Amino acid sequence: MIDDISMKIRADELIRMALAEDVTSEDVSTSSVLPAPAEGEADLLCKQSGVVAGLPVFARVFELLGGVRVTLLAKDGDRVEKGQKLASLRGDMRAILTGERTALNFLQRMSGIATYTAKMAALLAGSGLKLVDTRKTTPNMRLFEKYAVRMGGGFNHRYNLSDAVLLKDNHIGAAGGVREAVARAKAHAPFTAKIEVEAESVAMAVEAVEAGADIVMLDNMSHDDMKEAVRRIAGRAIVEISGNVTAENAAQLKDIGADVVSCGALTHSAPILDVSLKNLHPVG
Amino acid sequence: MIDDISMKIRADELIRMALAEDVTSEDVSTSSVLPAPAEGEADLLCKQSGVVAGLPVFARVFELLGGVRVTLLAKDGDRVEKGQKLASLRGDMRAILTGERTALNFLQRMSGIATYTAKMAALLAGSGLKLVDTRKTTPNMRLFEKYAVRMGGGFNHRYNLSDAVLLKDNHIGAAGGVREAVARAKAHAPFTAKIEVEAESVAMAVEAVEAGADIVMLDNMSHDDMKEAVRRIAGRAIVEISGNVTAENAAQLKDIGADVVSCGALTHSAPILDVSLKNLHPVG
Amino acid sequence: MIDDISMKIRADELIRMALAEDVTSEDVSTSSVLPAPAEGEADLLCKQSGVVAGLPVFARVFELLGGVRVTLLAKDGDRVEKGQKLASLRGDMRAILTGERTALNFLQRMSGIATYTAKMAALLAGSGLKLVDTRKTTPNMRLFEKYAVRMGGGFNHRYNLSDAVLLKDNHIGAAGGVREAVARAKAHAPFTAKIEVEAESVAMAVEAVEAGADIVMLDNMSHDDMKEAVRRIAGRAIVEISGNVTAENAAQLKDIGADVVSCGALTHSAPILDVSLKNLHPVG
Amino acid sequence: MIDDISMKIRADELIRMALAEDVTSEDVSTSSVLPAPAEGEADLLCKQSGVVAGLPVFARVFELLGGVRVTLLAKDGDRVEKGQKLASLRGDMRAILTGERTALNFLQRMSGIATYTAKMAALLAGSGLKLVDTRKTTPNMRLFEKYAVRMGGGFNHRYNLSDAVLLKDNHIGAAGGVREAVARAKAHAPFTAKIEVEAESVAMAVEAVEAGADIVMLDNMSHDDMKEAVRRIAGRAIVEISGNVTAENAAQLKDIGADVVSCGALTHSAPILDVSLKNLHPVG
Amino acid sequence: MIDDISMKIRADELIRMALAEDVTSEDVSTSSVLPAPAEGEADLLCKQSGVVAGLPVFARVFELLGGVRVTLLAKDGDRVEKGQKLASLRGDMRAILTGERTALNFLQRMSGIATYTAKMAALLAGSGLKLVDTRKTTPNMRLFEKYAVRMGGGFNHRYNLSDAVLLKDNHIGAAGGVREAVARAKAHAPFTAKIEVEAESVAMAVEAVEAGADIVMLDNMSHDDMKEAVRRIAGRAIVEISGNVTAENAAQLKDIGADVVSCGALTHSAPILDVSLKNLHPVG
Amino acid sequence: MIDDISMKIRADELIRMALAEDVTSEDVSTSSVLPAPAEGEADLLCKQSGVVAGLPVFARVFELLGGVRVTLLAKDGDRVEKGQKLASLRGDMRAILTGERTALNFLQRMSGIATYTAKMAALLAGSGLKLVDTRKTTPNMRLFEKYAVRMGGGFNHRYNLSDAVLLKDNHIGAAGGVREAVARAKAHAPFTAKIEVEAESVAMAVEAVEAGADIVMLDNMSHDDMKEAVRRIAGRAIVEISGNVTAENAAQLKDIGADVVSCGALTHSAPILDVSLKNLHPVG
Repeated sequence: MIDDISMKIRADELIRMALAEDVTSEDVSTSSVLPAPAEGEADLLCKQSGVVAGLPVFARVFELLGGVRVTLLAKDGDRVEKGQKLASLRGDMRAILTGERTALNFLQRMSGIATYTAKMAALLAGSGLKLVDTRKTTPNMRLFEKYAVRMGGGFNHRYNLSDAVLLKDNHIGAAGGVREAVARAKAHAPFTAKIEVEAESVAMAVEAVEAGADIVMLDNMSHDDMKEAVRRIAGRAIVEISGNVTAENAAQLKDIGADVVSCGALTHSAPILDVSLKNLHPVG
Repeated sequence: MIDDISMKIRADELIRMALAEDVTSEDVSTSSVLPAPAEGEADLLCKQSGVVAGLPVFARVFELLGGVRVTLLAKDGDRVEKGQKLASLRGDMRAILTGERTALNFLQRMSGIATYTAKMAALLAGSGLKLVDTRKTTPNMRLFEKYAVRMGGGFNHRYNLSDAVLLKDNHIGAAGGVREAVARAKAHAPFTAKIEVEAESVAMAVEAVEAGADIVMLDNMSHDDMKEAVRRIAGRAIVEISGNVTAENAAQLKDIGADVVSCGALTHSAPILDVSLKNLHPVG
Repeated sequence: MIDDISMKIRADELIRMALAEDVTSEDVSTSSVLPAPAEGEADLLCKQSGVVAGLPVFARVFELLGGVRVTLLAKDGDRVEKGQKLASLRGDMRAILTGERTALNFLQRMSGIATYTAKMAALLAGSGLKLVDTRKTTPNMRLFEKYAVRMGGGFNHRYNLSDAVLLKDNHIGAAGGVREAVARAKAHAPFTAKIEVEAESVAMAVEAVEAGADIVMLDNMSHDDMKEAVRRIAGRAIVEISGNVTAENAAQLKDIGADVVSCGALTHSAPILDVSLKNLHPVG
Repeated sequence: MIDDISMKIRADELIRMALAEDVTSEDVSTSSVLPAPAEGEADLLCKQSGVVAGLPVFARVFELLGGVRVTLLAKDGDRVEKGQKLASLRGDMRAILTGERTALNFLQRMSGIATYTAKMAALLAGSGLKLVDTRKTTPNMRLFEKYAVRMGGGFNHRYNLSDAVLLKDNHIGAAGGVREAVARAKAHAPFTAKIEVEAESVAMAVEAVEAGADIVMLDNMSHDDMKEAVRRIAGRAIVEISGNVTAENAAQLKDIGADVVSCGALTHSAPILDVSLKNLHPVG
Repeated sequence: MIDDISMKIRADELIRMALAEDVTSEDVSTSSVLPAPAEGEADLLCKQSGVVAGLPVFARVFELLGGVRVTLLAKDGDRVEKGQKLASLRGDMRAILTGERTALNFLQRMSGIATYTAKMAALLAGSGLKLVDTRKTTPNMRLFEKYAVRMGGGFNHRYNLSDAVLLKDNHIGAAGGVREAVARAKAHAPFTAKIEVEAESVAMAVEAVEAGADIVMLDNMSHDDMKEAVRRIAGRAIVEISGNVTAENAAQLKDIGADVVSCGALTHSAPILDVSLKNLHPVG
Repeated sequence: MIDDISMKIRADELIRMALAEDVTSEDVSTSSVLPAPAEGEADLLCKQSGVVAGLPVFARVFELLGGVRVTLLAKDGDRVEKGQKLASLRGDMRAILTGERTALNFLQRMSGIATYTAKMAALLAGSGLKLVDTRKTTPNMRLFEKYAVRMGGGFNHRYNLSDAVLLKDNHIGAAGGVREAVARAKAHAPFTAKIEVEAESVAMAVEAVEAGADIVMLDNMSHDDMKEAVRRIAGRAIVEISGNVTAENAAQLKDIGADVVSCGALTHSAPILDVSLKNLHPVG
């Protein structure tokens, strides 16, 4: 959950940087016409239907700027409709105008990811196959993007290179074999981290499990080989497959018997969800 | 240009943060199997055709990590083909493995934007209508995304809220009218900054020009009104229209006689261009 | 305006750094004698007449330290007299003593610049010639110094190297001529940025305008040449002259017909305005 | 000494910030006309006579940008003449153009302080009275400004609130008297820090010395009282007087018998020394 | 491994901060007597026998300062003897003197932890029981301290709150039971993270395993209960016990049949290993 | 004093970094089971007797996280008993659980140092010999550790390399002798900083005093030589001896007649004081 606690520990710095990216010195348009605080109200409206994510981040932008009260009318993970009012803002119009774009840039991208994830997850509904993200996130946006995947009904793969082991061909080559690579990882990595092995064949998948891998990723195998690998792994490890989820291939994916399917597109290619600030007007 | 100079002044911090986002303590997989430096080589390959952008950023990731020499075989803005080799890497395999994802995350997103921009720009070819970006960029990625738009053949709108004036309905309302808003901006903003006014009608567009606006943005007007506005502005200001560019509407956009068309989708909804590191193998 | 919004986005970091510059570990004098909070009051007094600038920054120093309430009795841009009380402070004497020097260092320098600018601007009164600053500011103080120029009745030139184009002899030489340099800038820089050309002769000034320059800076020309250049530019571009403004040369400067005169001394050589904290005493 | 060691520990961050203050995204003028590296040369010339300070900082700006070699032809503390060449630069013209203003802003201000300090110190020549600076420095420039004072022949007072004790009237009031204030400071502050007391009368000066003060500052006393205080302190403490040094008052200052005279104007009101980059031209 | 890669990504910032902690402005002692670079040599010597850790950090301090070449004569994890030479330094004596304390402060603490860990690990030798650390590390030193544990022959528990799940009594209480807490963690945390449950009784340990916990920590149970828990867990989860390891209790710990024993003292209470810089002398 | 003022200027950044060190993305355990705020209470209890230090830092951790009110029941420097309740916490259980370890890591280490210092200081009781710390502190913890020494009844030596001069053998060698080294330091360092000389013989100690040293450190001398040095220094300088204080050597240390004894072990080898959070339970 990106709640008020992790927000303060991890998100605030990124939000402040984003505001500074948009303001080198001052918002010259706003300070030209509004030299003093002026109370106003505005609405946050959906312009497309989808799944919303990032509302607390949107609100936090204005909290950091100060002088604006954001009242949320929806919560992250909600399915929202075009035209729906997601929040109302009241406070200093200068802060509303200056913070608007930064707040929306976070919210739109996060909601875009949640919406896309929800669509993909729906294709797998009922199969028990979990849809998970990857490390193919936008630089310095991983915190927000992986959270958005969860809000869309997806699940998270490892956060980064430090919190789980994933042994790919080069790692295995460097170690001299699957067995040796897994052994070295067990000796080196925190014992609390799971060890995943990328397997390119049924034999390799089986070898990985027997070496003690907690997760086996079936990489670039035929559909039949994947089914065979699942059969032979026989529940001794979590089985991950990777690749895009489409309406066309969903049935086949569900049929393999794997546990999770990872999909880079969730974070690297989801279009935004269009959300905007409307009806800003002075009050009082 | 994101060259070695602006890279050091502005990009390095963001690149370092992206590396730290991916490594909390260490790359546990790599350090498990490669406890000491090991010389290797790898290729950077296109997996989709498009326009590449971000190669110097890709290379800089490894320069900051140290121990890897990246030889670029293409340059930003080049049209590249599926299967084409964009760069070769040689150096410490540990650095290659640890930096790979961060370097690709930058390159893929930037190339995705360049590719999408090139596709949109092609629809406007021959018309003299310039395709420009917006401030709808990913938080803390604006430097990279606006550069990518240029590499794709687009042009840049203002960088942020500080470097040009854009007076929207709320600014105009706060000032009490177009004339007064422009006058205040001239008095307040650096005289080196252009002043743009968002006009909702032909009359307002004309009023803006007469008040001294350098740029008029035609917002939400009918096609005929936009043509009429252009006729009455008569070259006294740059005319901007906004909205998505599609194969369907391109002919109409070109017909208005405007100077620039801004398009948020260039940066907020372009899918990545698939690029990957292949053939990593030990040498020497 | 350095208001509470831009303060939070841009000034806070610099203020915090300035406090840390003055306190490596603790204020050893104050913590020796005041081990616990002690309520007190103090006055902020002018010790020289001039134009004040930086009062919100002064107040913000104490807001960031906490425990002190600053009541402002004047506002930035006000002409203030020797002996005048500018603010009263009430709160923890420890914070007042620790923050005093940092708060005054900002206020004194900013007010010094505003005062000097007002004096120079007065020499140009009635001429329509605007006095503008330059990039000759103190490192890491530009935000505060350019604001102070405005508070003194001056105007701002471009903020930095990114927000407007200024083509000097070396840029023109590199491009191969004025025409080519302007063309390249139009192709490269955001279309929202004005393009200025530094001209060393009447002919070059005219060439610049005809190439599409928005601003022409007349550099190192004779008085007669400058008048001739203005005549031939004929309103097609803003005309800037540079150099110090003195009682002696003001009449001549006003006579040229230029639009703005830029003056580095506003920010690089203005002496401070003496302002100090007085009458600190315990209360309650 | 600001040498290569303290530069790395303390100055680099401030230099990088100053460069980033001048470049939000890129130097649009330079990158418009110089899209690729181009070798060039330039000279650093004095335009006013004075004492130079900050040459290593000037050089470091270009070292951090990379691609430019600065050859210093003078050293900090040297008296330099109008027209004298202080350094030659050779390297990428893009880096020279982009770094020029930041490098000069440091050098000009530091040399201005050194020059002003040298002028003031000359007035005290032969007297044994040391000229020292204060904490009235520009925010975030103290490192550079206090160094410049030394280069001009002055000496440094305490660096900040943490490295020495200075008990003023409010501290003494809070403690309940000079004796008690000094005792508390001895108990609280590092025993390696000297303790200074600001005395408003001869009696208070004597009380301070007897309480164990290492330094007594004579504040706002008549000339005769200061002489009397010096006589009664009798070498048991360092005696500091404060105030501006002018041609008029120098004889009187020297006559008191004090050890040091502190002067805020050294850092808060010295005009810059005019230094500039000339003759930039392509080579090779 | 803290190698040159993770050093750059994560350690450099902490090393630079530590240098800045020791130098507010300059090393006044060294710059008083060594105004210019002076070549020298020095030896890094052990003054106590133990296990060394942190040599690359020691060397990196001088690399960041520049001008000093450190030749390592031992490697992290080596058992070293009193009087043994661990490295020789050659370069600018100013850098050696200024960096000495910071470099030693890292090395001494890290070696102290490695030495203490080795001593504790030796008590468990031959038992298969792994000694692991905890999150009871010194603030902002975790990177270095957890590495030092490994160099001493220990193993790492989770790095921080984000990379593994550890459900304690309060978490379980909040969820409403072990089964529900584990279920929620499986739904929420990355599937790559192991889930550990702190069990206060044999029944609870068994319940945890049956709920799907990967690790069970036996907390505050009697020796017999722990043995019983291990028996009933029967290899279905990793079993962790916690508490100090002493010569007295080692035999009992080994007898339980657990997999790991965690020990906070490794990082929170190990005394340093005395190491110092000797024989600094000028050369050349 | 680490009070609310120096906390904000210097400690906050380090506390925030420590929180971020413990949370890469979120506290996955807590956010799994507590998706929403939940009011709770907990007690901070001593598990060992000693001297407490760091309570305001402990409280500040939760203030920065927000949502938790800490009521302190003891104050820094208090002697506390096993089982004693030091504070009660009330607020969002999520913040309590997430901040617990970081807050305790500060408090335990600081209290450990205070406790160890108090024990050592007690051995010197009645002698007038002050126990002082050194620069052998944990990197990036000096602020907290030197404060803890004072809370334990010790005193502080210089904070870092910038705030006092300490001339060791290498400095003296570089200058060409004690007299010359002291003279250079007087010319170079702020006149507010004391100058200390490390003397290896009685003659050298006397030479140092006569050269004007404020403090003489007797290094590696026999007990008799130290007594002789003290006799000959005759109050003209503060005399420091260094080395560990033990029950065995305390009588001898007291007998020398020195003023201060410095002891690195206070900060580099004190074990923590065990303090923990107990009885967390939901309320309301």
